[in-house]
Amino acid sequence: MVYVRDWVSVTPISVAGSDAGIVQAARVSLLHDDPPNFESDETGARDRGLINYLMREKHGTPFEHNSITFRAEAPIFVFREWHRHRIQSYNEQSARYTEMTPNFYIPSIERPLVNSGTSAKPVYDKKPTEDEWQFMETAVYESYQDSWGTYQRLLERGIAPEVARIVLPVGIISRMYATANLRAWMNFLSLRTHVEGAVHVSRPQREIEMCAELIEEHLTQFFPIAMKAYNANGRVAP
Amino acid sequence: MVYVRDWVSVTPISVAGSDAGIVQAARVSLLHDDPPNFESDETGARDRGLINYLMREKHGTPFEHNSITFRAEAPIFVFREWHRHRIQSYNEQSARYTEMTPNFYIPSIERPLVNSGTSAKPVYDKKPTEDEWQFMETAVYESYQDSWGTYQRLLERGIAPEVARIVLPVGIISRMYATANLRAWMNFLSLRTHVEGAVHVSRPQREIEMCAELIEEHLTQFFPIAMKAYNANGRVAP
Amino acid sequence: MVYVRDWVSVTPISVAGSDAGIVQAARVSLLHDDPPNFESDETGARDRGLINYLMREKHGTPFEHNSITFRAEAPIFVFREWHRHRIQSYNEQSARYTEMTPNFYIPSIERPLVNSGTSAKPVYDKKPTEDEWQFMETAVYESYQDSWGTYQRLLERGIAPEVARIVLPVGIISRMYATANLRAWMNFLSLRTHVEGAVHVSRPQREIEMCAELIEEHLTQFFPIAMKAYNANGRVAP
Amino acid sequence: MVYVRDWVSVTPISVAGSDAGIVQAARVSLLHDDPPNFESDETGARDRGLINYLMREKHGTPFEHNSITFRAEAPIFVFREWHRHRIQSYNEQSARYTEMTPNFYIPSIERPLVNSGTSAKPVYDKKPTEDEWQFMETAVYESYQDSWGTYQRLLERGIAPEVARIVLPVGIISRMYATANLRAWMNFLSLRTHVEGAVHVSRPQREIEMCAELIEEHLTQFFPIAMKAYNANGRVAP
Repeated sequence: MVYVRDWVSVTPISVAGSDAGIVQAARVSLLHDDPPNFESDETGARDRGLINYLMREKHGTPFEHNSITFRAEAPIFVFREWHRHRIQSYNEQSARYTEMTPNFYIPSIERPLVNSGTSAKPVYDKKPTEDEWQFMETAVYESYQDSWGTYQRLLERGIAPEVARIVLPVGIISRMYATANLRAWMNFLSLRTHVEGAVHVSRPQREIEMCAELIEEHLTQFFPIAMKAYNANGRVAP
Repeated sequence: MVYVRDWVSVTPISVAGSDAGIVQAARVSLLHDDPPNFESDETGARDRGLINYLMREKHGTPFEHNSITFRAEAPIFVFREWHRHRIQSYNEQSARYTEMTPNFYIPSIERPLVNSGTSAKPVYDKKPTEDEWQFMETAVYESYQDSWGTYQRLLERGIAPEVARIVLPVGIISRMYATANLRAWMNFLSLRTHVEGAVHVSRPQREIEMCAELIEEHLTQFFPIAMKAYNANGRVAP
Repeated sequence: MVYVRDWVSVTPISVAGSDAGIVQAARVSLLHDDPPNFESDETGARDRGLINYLMREKHGTPFEHNSITFRAEAPIFVFREWHRHRIQSYNEQSARYTEMTPNFYIPSIERPLVNSGTSAKPVYDKKPTEDEWQFMETAVYESYQDSWGTYQRLLERGIAPEVARIVLPVGIISRMYATANLRAWMNFLSLRTHVEGAVHVSRPQREIEMCAELIEEHLTQFFPIAMKAYNANGRVAP
Repeated sequence: MVYVRDWVSVTPISVAGSDAGIVQAARVSLLHDDPPNFESDETGARDRGLINYLMREKHGTPFEHNSITFRAEAPIFVFREWHRHRIQSYNEQSARYTEMTPNFYIPSIERPLVNSGTSAKPVYDKKPTEDEWQFMETAVYESYQDSWGTYQRLLERGIAPEVARIVLPVGIISRMYATANLRAWMNFLSLRTHVEGAVHVSRPQREIEMCAELIEEHLTQFFPIAMKAYNANGRVAP
């Protein structure tokens, strides 16, 4: 029996730092690193302006003195792309030491399945018909079932999980903790979201973009001023 | 039709630096960074001794002024572990922009399939019987065939490679270029080989160890003095 | 007028994560990443044991999902060594955009001034006599005064701070924010403290060791279980 | 007796990789990583176009499979900025284990000494008069002589180099090896050169820009096609 889902999840586990910390770290260079007060009539605008200035002028280091840890659940093919970001810390579910769980990803009917652009400039703008989606859904589901069945048979025979897992597809769901600072997360967003109007328009695979969108929501809550400046300056990580 | 192999490959693409470069870089700290001559009766022993001293005392930076690029072919579950090393540079075959090729990994009969230790301290010391191996081989081969068949059917229907690949197993062969300096490669070896007598005895999965062993052979050719010092000092990266 | 000090300071600015977070991150690999309870009779010992196991077996990544920011005041020659640690984030007082302040470092009479070992294995075990210290103190103080005087004269003439500062000595005090995760801080401690009995006995300059000792005190407060395991396992960063 | 210079030096020590290597690494993703031939009538334009495409679309990793080591001589205040680049490898002359040499930096009369902009947007566009320069030159030279004299007296008294050096100014010349890949060097150039028309106009201190200009000359020789693409795409590191 296998379970399928058409979603990913990203949950914040721990957050250190804030917009105020960005200002403080930047101000150590000018010898007055007292905590700012963004609500102040006198200094609030100046302090928000500093964050915007740092973003625009690409003074990136003040955005590094913080740390955000997420717990993500997503298919392996998403984590394969995610792990290419080297300025993050990772712990992922082990397929050597534990049995995987039978959770798999199948795209929803909202997710275009056909590339109507080129491979250098992919465009996914046409949702599948009910028939097309059903064809894909059935084929993928059956394939998942078969692979999982083989995995189970191998385990039952006493074969180690690290060997048995070689038949498992990259659509299987895995779990991990990922930690990075805001500067690194903004770089992740720049590469893993598709936003028209960005200075550099990236073309990520939809599934990692789904993760990135959830991450962006959380970051916007934790660092509202910095994230506003990020968007105002073309979504370029400083 | 799928092809299976029980091996991985690692081929050097480009090498910069040498044992001599390690000595030179270390000597810049002492103001005489002339190229050493290991063959010299007068200075050869001293220069080899310096490399040993740097290794033992964990002065790691002189081992970084070089670069070795390998082209590796291995299954995805190996690259998943490999990519967790963040001080390397990677380019891998894309499953978004190209069709994969039907090459898959199945362990040879030499590869123990059962963990006779614990999960915290796995031990793989018993080769499978012909029967056990045959059971595994047949089950895995058939599973690979089925997954590949589904992949092909999805592609034929016009579904994009980035979606169709979700059914492909982590045992499929991929290709990549991986570049790192000698210090980072020695760290890779420390973690990805199992050598009794090492200061820290690691327990890697056999398949990434197969890659590591090939890498070690090449490094030993390119940096014979440094690699001898690495082994003489307990296989700890400096 | 110049001010001298024989001390450095390290103040925590922000801390994220805890011993519990290390356990949680490690357990995501085993699918049960609930927060541990170290006080529990039933599970406390097991959870502390896990941290010790991770340290001993060099499973380093669970120690990365946290972040500690310090504000340090120390002479430039200390920051020169500190900045060679590349897995940290830095913001330092700018000598381009601001005038420096006339604070300088002079070693106390407790600090040995003579190397009674070799340059490969320095040993500083003999405190100076009153006379020796006085000689050093006077010479250094006067040199600081002269350099500062020149700096002031250059600034008064309208020369930019970034040029005028070229006469300032590396003994002048600077300020910075430094952020890293616990794994990186433990690596810093391994290299920047001299502790007999460590697996690798390092020989840092005393002044950066003074910073490291302050850092270690703070880390021991924030991560008592992990720091105990660090010491119990030879002060090797995992 | 001290020596002064108004220049820095950057000498290539070792180079691995080439424009061809960039194409090869990129093509591994498409399964045909044969060496390109830029001179070919048939494929040369296509292969140069690929490098330009990678640069424009910010596919940065193919630019990482190479390595360039430079030996640099420059004042300490330059190396202080340089070391903030964390994706490089460094070995520098030690002031703990060796005596420094009496070489110091004084700006030439070509180097503007006064900031006619603001501190947030410094502008150095007016060369000093003979008088202004002479004033600076004399003041700095005498300060260097005094500091060096104190350093010598401390050493003569038997005080360890690591302590005696605290009086030495940041204008003293040091030496180091610095190694990075082309992607990291391009990032260095983006931040450490001031070029009107760049997508992001940086405002580095002149002395590190002097190093960067020498580095750029060498890179342009070793990687002519990539460096052309770098300039054609706004001097943004990919």
